[in-house]
Amino acid sequence: MSSSSSSSNAAESIAVAARQAFEASQLVEVGQRDVALGAIRKVLESKREEVLAANKKDMEAAEALAAEGKLSKTLVSRLDLSRPGKYDSMLQGITDVAALPAPTGLVTFAKELGPGLDLYRVTCPVGVLLVIFEARPEVVVNIAALAIKSGNAAILKGGKESIHTATLLSSLIGEALSTTSIPSTFIQSVSTRSEISSLLAQDKYIDLVMPRGGNELVRSIQNNTRIPVMGHADGICAVYVDESAKEEKAVRVVVESKIDYMAACNSAETLLIHSSLLDTLWPRIASALFSHNVCLRCDPSTLSAIKDHPDTSRLATASSETDYHTEFLGPTLAVKTVGSVSEAIKHINSHSSHHTDSIITEDESAMSAWCRGLDSANCFVNASTRFADGTRYGLGTEVGISTGKTHARGPVGLDGLVIYKYMMRSKTEGGSLIADHEKGEGKYTHKDLPREQPPF
Amino acid sequence: MSSSSSSSNAAESIAVAARQAFEASQLVEVGQRDVALGAIRKVLESKREEVLAANKKDMEAAEALAAEGKLSKTLVSRLDLSRPGKYDSMLQGITDVAALPAPTGLVTFAKELGPGLDLYRVTCPVGVLLVIFEARPEVVVNIAALAIKSGNAAILKGGKESIHTATLLSSLIGEALSTTSIPSTFIQSVSTRSEISSLLAQDKYIDLVMPRGGNELVRSIQNNTRIPVMGHADGICAVYVDESAKEEKAVRVVVESKIDYMAACNSAETLLIHSSLLDTLWPRIASALFSHNVCLRCDPSTLSAIKDHPDTSRLATASSETDYHTEFLGPTLAVKTVGSVSEAIKHINSHSSHHTDSIITEDESAMSAWCRGLDSANCFVNASTRFADGTRYGLGTEVGISTGKTHARGPVGLDGLVIYKYMMRSKTEGGSLIADHEKGEGKYTHKDLPREQPPF
Repeated sequence: MSSSSSSSNAAESIAVAARQAFEASQLVEVGQRDVALGAIRKVLESKREEVLAANKKDMEAAEALAAEGKLSKTLVSRLDLSRPGKYDSMLQGITDVAALPAPTGLVTFAKELGPGLDLYRVTCPVGVLLVIFEARPEVVVNIAALAIKSGNAAILKGGKESIHTATLLSSLIGEALSTTSIPSTFIQSVSTRSEISSLLAQDKYIDLVMPRGGNELVRSIQNNTRIPVMGHADGICAVYVDESAKEEKAVRVVVESKIDYMAACNSAETLLIHSSLLDTLWPRIASALFSHNVCLRCDPSTLSAIKDHPDTSRLATASSETDYHTEFLGPTLAVKTVGSVSEAIKHINSHSSHHTDSIITEDESAMSAWCRGLDSANCFVNASTRFADGTRYGLGTEVGISTGKTHARGPVGLDGLVIYKYMMRSKTEGGSLIADHEKGEGKYTHKDLPREQPPF
Repeated sequence: MSSSSSSSNAAESIAVAARQAFEASQLVEVGQRDVALGAIRKVLESKREEVLAANKKDMEAAEALAAEGKLSKTLVSRLDLSRPGKYDSMLQGITDVAALPAPTGLVTFAKELGPGLDLYRVTCPVGVLLVIFEARPEVVVNIAALAIKSGNAAILKGGKESIHTATLLSSLIGEALSTTSIPSTFIQSVSTRSEISSLLAQDKYIDLVMPRGGNELVRSIQNNTRIPVMGHADGICAVYVDESAKEEKAVRVVVESKIDYMAACNSAETLLIHSSLLDTLWPRIASALFSHNVCLRCDPSTLSAIKDHPDTSRLATASSETDYHTEFLGPTLAVKTVGSVSEAIKHINSHSSHHTDSIITEDESAMSAWCRGLDSANCFVNASTRFADGTRYGLGTEVGISTGKTHARGPVGLDGLVIYKYMMRSKTEGGSLIADHEKGEGKYTHKDLPREQPPF
């Protein structure tokens, strides 16, 4: 057997096991999911030393690579579960997820179709998730908790640098589940890229892929599967300073959107300036950005307007078209002049990643045009782009951020992990037939029913 | 220029035009969509003779093919717009869609994140739709109306036998739109398969593909695009007769589910019989099916239980495994014995197309297991599978039926053509920053706001 077909057989076994675990779990009472989360917390509490020992192995390997310059220090630091408070906050995360309301079993539509025939639309898990994420071992636990809470089986793949920690955490989760009514294969993990490519072919068993990670990862997954993919490839966010913008607002929002956390997907990468502000507000904004050592890639008008600023020669250069399509993830900002809010919207719709964009304005009609005309998940008025986040939105938790146009968009909470099914119940003596309702005078009533709870 | 690159350039132009039309339409008041629908109705009313003349061309070509046995009579009859009442009902359809409530601009979540910072989640169109459908010219008008009502631009491709009618209808729709505030390229149509394959590569501009048609079409589209696909490939629906089933219900529901309209995707293709009923209820059901000339493909137990029935030799044969994966779309039914409701659920989850399945039972726990354990869009109790339909559900209209697990599932109405965006508005003097809310004691309130209307 070739290695590719053996990896594809292994992938199929994992996918089938996940599917079976999902199907078996559908008959388990929803409250048992929280019991399972409690069991996981307990096992992880008792195995703290073992987990930290596995994490130490990952850390040593990562530090060696970092010393050779082959790995970033940020990655090494994210890998570290032994930082003060880190392990406890991972455990607390499980309890927090358990405390959220269950997103399944909610009735979103209920109608009596006709006498004795009731139809309910009820939220339910999507099924089997494949989640691919960065080398942060606590994410294994976080995603497992979200999957269990929402009733979805999950196959997890963390960044390879976290392999010892992630493998152990995943096996401890399985161990904990085996003492509960949720099947132990409800959460599984894989450790290699080749397993992922084989899993992407298992569209019969896997319902949704959620890649968290760089552009390249996300696009390669989108190109290689017919399973629906939820996530975002880029975060090219813009701030537009409108004609009517107030100085303080503009400076504060632009600066925070750029510098608060430059590696985040919701940080600003593009700044659009209304042409009427070139000689007034724009130089003040530029000056504030310079004071944070932000490099500006400017179009001719914005560059010329700040040519006399002492920092311009050091920090500002002429922009190219590519700059307006770039996620810098660092101290660089592309700047461009626009003549109107509609020109700003057009620029963003054709250059951004449809993630988060903010307008600075006092003009109600500009606000309205912005929020309606922009084809972005998060359309902000006078607020920092950094607010685009599930926790900040009060969603309880965040599975990821989606820039897609179907299923879920923007910060995705637990309700992005559910879909619905229709349940219909006939209460008539002879069962319900189309013939009873459509022959003669017809007997559809289509009367709304109370939505308190599902019929079963 | 090669013909494939010219068709791909043409596809890109169409997709870009659709995108631009969509974006331009976002600033048009929602009520104008109904005005546009009125204009379309008026133009189609005034051009009835021209449309019927174009339809006559299609009919003549189709009848010639049918005479050579190259086209089915059903297809020819569906093509015919001159049947009494047909044209008027197409026109009335436009008015009916206009009368539905708009699915966009609805607030589904509203929270004050903190003092002076309000977040709204508001439904909005998905964007640009690519809809591929059968050779039924009135579907052009129907889909155009649904797209306009929901604010989505659409590119339409009807079956090639309807080309003259579809092309004219589509150009009349464009003509009508050009007199309104909705761009005339909001609805476009293409006529060849090669244009479709080029359009499937335009994921930058097209947001959702909806193929209506056979299994082969749907799978080939799923395999050849990274645009999300909504629809269903198969309709392999089952009826399960449980131990506690009452005779009259069982016979009525099984028979209607099978014979009401055998070519429909929500007709039964599989019948599962509880083993306790082999010598009692099963022969009566078989007899009822025989009386409608339904051929039965039976497993050994069900076949042996009816071996003495006079019609068995004529209409019943032994089944193969393939029969349980087959959408017969005609007078054939695969029959199998199962030992319990959970065995029935397992069979259906692994053999069906997750479309619609019905249980016949008097047992509450069986009903509950059925509706929770079955991974199907429509889980029915004591009712005909034929109820799975948007109009019968009272959704107002139906875009199609989805067996997918994300975005929309089951019969899809107008609300399956929308997604949402987040709109956030800061009302504070200096704009809203993360720093204001997370430094010091923290100021997130996450207080629910009224959901009456969007902020802009």
